[in-house]
Amino acid sequence: MNQELYDYYQAYKQKTNAYALALSTMSFDQATIAPKNGTSYSNQLMAVLSTEAFIHASNPESIKKIEQLANEDIDDLLKKELSLLLKELHDNKDVPTDVFSEFTLATNEAGTAWSDAIDNQDYITFIPYLERVINAVKKQLKYHPNKKECAYNILLDRFEPGMNMDKYDAFFEQVKESLIPLIHQIIDADKKIDESILNQSFDIKSQEVFMNELCEYMRVNRDECYISTTQHPFTSFFSGNDVRITTHYYEKNLLSAIFSTIHEYGHALFGLQIDDAFEGTSLSNAIGFAMHESQSRFLENHIGKSKAFWEPNLAKLKANFPSLESLDIDTFMELVNVSKPSLVRTEADELTYPLHVIIRYELEKEMFENETIDYLQLNEKWNQKYKEYLGVTPSHDGEGILQDMHWSSAYFGYFPTYALGSAYAAQFYHTMSQRLDVDSILKNNEFEKIATWLKDNIHHHGASKTTEEILFEVTHEEFNPMYYITYLQDKFKTLYKL
Amino acid sequence: MNQELYDYYQAYKQKTNAYALALSTMSFDQATIAPKNGTSYSNQLMAVLSTEAFIHASNPESIKKIEQLANEDIDDLLKKELSLLLKELHDNKDVPTDVFSEFTLATNEAGTAWSDAIDNQDYITFIPYLERVINAVKKQLKYHPNKKECAYNILLDRFEPGMNMDKYDAFFEQVKESLIPLIHQIIDADKKIDESILNQSFDIKSQEVFMNELCEYMRVNRDECYISTTQHPFTSFFSGNDVRITTHYYEKNLLSAIFSTIHEYGHALFGLQIDDAFEGTSLSNAIGFAMHESQSRFLENHIGKSKAFWEPNLAKLKANFPSLESLDIDTFMELVNVSKPSLVRTEADELTYPLHVIIRYELEKEMFENETIDYLQLNEKWNQKYKEYLGVTPSHDGEGILQDMHWSSAYFGYFPTYALGSAYAAQFYHTMSQRLDVDSILKNNEFEKIATWLKDNIHHHGASKTTEEILFEVTHEEFNPMYYITYLQDKFKTLYKL
Repeated sequence: MNQELYDYYQAYKQKTNAYALALSTMSFDQATIAPKNGTSYSNQLMAVLSTEAFIHASNPESIKKIEQLANEDIDDLLKKELSLLLKELHDNKDVPTDVFSEFTLATNEAGTAWSDAIDNQDYITFIPYLERVINAVKKQLKYHPNKKECAYNILLDRFEPGMNMDKYDAFFEQVKESLIPLIHQIIDADKKIDESILNQSFDIKSQEVFMNELCEYMRVNRDECYISTTQHPFTSFFSGNDVRITTHYYEKNLLSAIFSTIHEYGHALFGLQIDDAFEGTSLSNAIGFAMHESQSRFLENHIGKSKAFWEPNLAKLKANFPSLESLDIDTFMELVNVSKPSLVRTEADELTYPLHVIIRYELEKEMFENETIDYLQLNEKWNQKYKEYLGVTPSHDGEGILQDMHWSSAYFGYFPTYALGSAYAAQFYHTMSQRLDVDSILKNNEFEKIATWLKDNIHHHGASKTTEEILFEVTHEEFNPMYYITYLQDKFKTLYKL
Repeated sequence: MNQELYDYYQAYKQKTNAYALALSTMSFDQATIAPKNGTSYSNQLMAVLSTEAFIHASNPESIKKIEQLANEDIDDLLKKELSLLLKELHDNKDVPTDVFSEFTLATNEAGTAWSDAIDNQDYITFIPYLERVINAVKKQLKYHPNKKECAYNILLDRFEPGMNMDKYDAFFEQVKESLIPLIHQIIDADKKIDESILNQSFDIKSQEVFMNELCEYMRVNRDECYISTTQHPFTSFFSGNDVRITTHYYEKNLLSAIFSTIHEYGHALFGLQIDDAFEGTSLSNAIGFAMHESQSRFLENHIGKSKAFWEPNLAKLKANFPSLESLDIDTFMELVNVSKPSLVRTEADELTYPLHVIIRYELEKEMFENETIDYLQLNEKWNQKYKEYLGVTPSHDGEGILQDMHWSSAYFGYFPTYALGSAYAAQFYHTMSQRLDVDSILKNNEFEKIATWLKDNIHHHGASKTTEEILFEVTHEEFNPMYYITYLQDKFKTLYKL
């Protein structure tokens, strides 16, 4: 191997990582604590820095040297690292700097505008920002190596390599076909879950105290995982030893913070358990989004919503909220798993959740398959689909089309990975439950055994293996959505005595 | 004016500002919330980014163009802006990149090491880091345009332009001569202030509630000023509309958080009240540190420790701490202004404070005037000086030589500005009190009038005028330390009935 090329690449990577860490830190700062009046200045400068990062990363001389290094006699891991990096670089290498800058500025400004728009439940004022973002994405895609491919397929592949509309259409058809009838059966079922005990105020300080206890149970290490609050929970990966998650507390909704935190910690755990040797390389950050989501959904649903998980934790919850004293575990498990069509994706139950995703997927497809978009009709279309699939209608756009930050960040093609990840999670869980006595582990306060299994089988690989490879290695099978569908059918038919 | 040069300069400045904002954000993040295990990775990358910023700023072609622009027919403000920038650039322009990188890395690592060292009260393990920082500073100074000047004079001038050892020696001699005898008179005075009422626990949540009330009184606008907590309070300037301050709460020390917050808010107010037109230019950030400190000391001591300030606020304090119910305002003013030699600078009273500064100044002089430093003796020297000037001795290095973060950050020459700033504050206050009825303003809850006076007379200028110019314009006099000395003598002789 040519040492000079290798050293060049190391320096290149350090600089890339420095920009990335700076931008992560600035974004996290903005999302959590930054005073409002400073946003416009910092948005401008974040765009400048993103442009610098882009110029650095896409420098043709660097790309050439990285290509040369990739052709040297190097070990397989480095080969994989370089190939993931080069894929990304080749995707962007023809994008002119001004097109990239416009993209960055458009998303930064849309972020702030979205935040105001949702506060004011005002979709109309958000339209010009959304339009600017979509145009910026479309313009950027004109410089993509596969520019002849449908724009939306490029975006789908970007978030989960190998995916496209055909595959998602097939998966989503199965989901719609099997789950929409079940959702409607549940609406009409005799069995009703009485949620009245949760219709009270839960002191936020007490929620925080309980969350600390739950974090201890899950072995959250605060020396590598910082937890903050934002309206929309998210996870931000600073490094293999520094992951930030956010959650949100609602006085009127006890379960929201709990499952948001467990969900985000699923992402965090993935980031923290990647092989240390991959620090700062594409092997630690080029993970498919569906793969990542499989880990958050795994923790949230398969672990966090199981009876065994709550057996050692329900007493702690009750100790913090004496008004729940009368609650027995079976009733609590019903409350945790209640299924009811609702308006807000992040608060949706496990069964109706994929329908929220499908609605967004179908709207995005339209946005990118058509030359022009009728922005003034988009919120109406949104509402119609909610009516059609879930039988509910938003009373305002704040709980309708404005609810997610994704579009303001140009994350088109991201939503479908949420449902795909849920399906991966079910397939992984099926295997894990054959190999580990999950229930006894959870009951006996041995959460570290779950974390270790996930690390050894999934997390430590980072992006050094594809989702397909990991799925096959762990489950000895290709992706099979029936694990997901059957899991949901069994669980909810039992729960609702159907 | 050559438009091309001007545009070049604007783009140059934006990039400089982007790096600066990224680094401020990352430092603030590290100081406040970053999980411990991520520090080493982020230190490395911050060093990379600082180096990039340095390479960008010191690019000879850019400097040449800025020099050309400075020689064009441009308005006075732009001339001033460029001259301040060029001074800084010329200071650094011969420093090789590797010398700069080593400096950055040394300070980043020393920051983390210092934080561990103070936790463990362990000066010995900190020595190699301190040595590395001092050597890095000395090495850098070898490339300074005035390299024939004493190293320490260069550093003093860097923190407060125009200052040098001769001037500080003269000022500090006056301080020592007038104040050391007074400090000893107070130690021996018959009048003793009974502080026992403060020797109790003060609930931290209640302290926070009171602090919010105090912030309202001071018109703190949270949309431009974020307040967090750190062991060592500081202010960080993100932009003219985004300033961050930190404070610290101690259960056993009610007054500490209060006066730390007021002090830091004095800095914040300066940053927030600079003319908006100076945003992102050297006119908003090249302010002398003594000038800046004059504003924090002004708020902390001349305003925050005055009886008129507490007349509307003491009742709120008592409402949060019923155990203080019996306290009358005159007793409280004695408690707030009690003078007693102590070990920790940031907790020192107004009268003994400059002696803490002088001790550091004398040690720094030695460090930079001598080729070699006996690091193993440095903590002993520190302790001896405390004994000599203040009659107290640290019981461990955590409350001795390790107490300040300044040396780990290479802020040599910074400390003396604290005392100089206090003296400026006294001179400013003398003038303000002749022009405004400060007492009635404070009693009548009209704090905005104080803020406005400071804005109109001092803050809005930013760095567009020198400290000398501002002092003369406002007070019609050059710097005169006797305002400070007389103020302290009058105040403390009255308090202690001497």
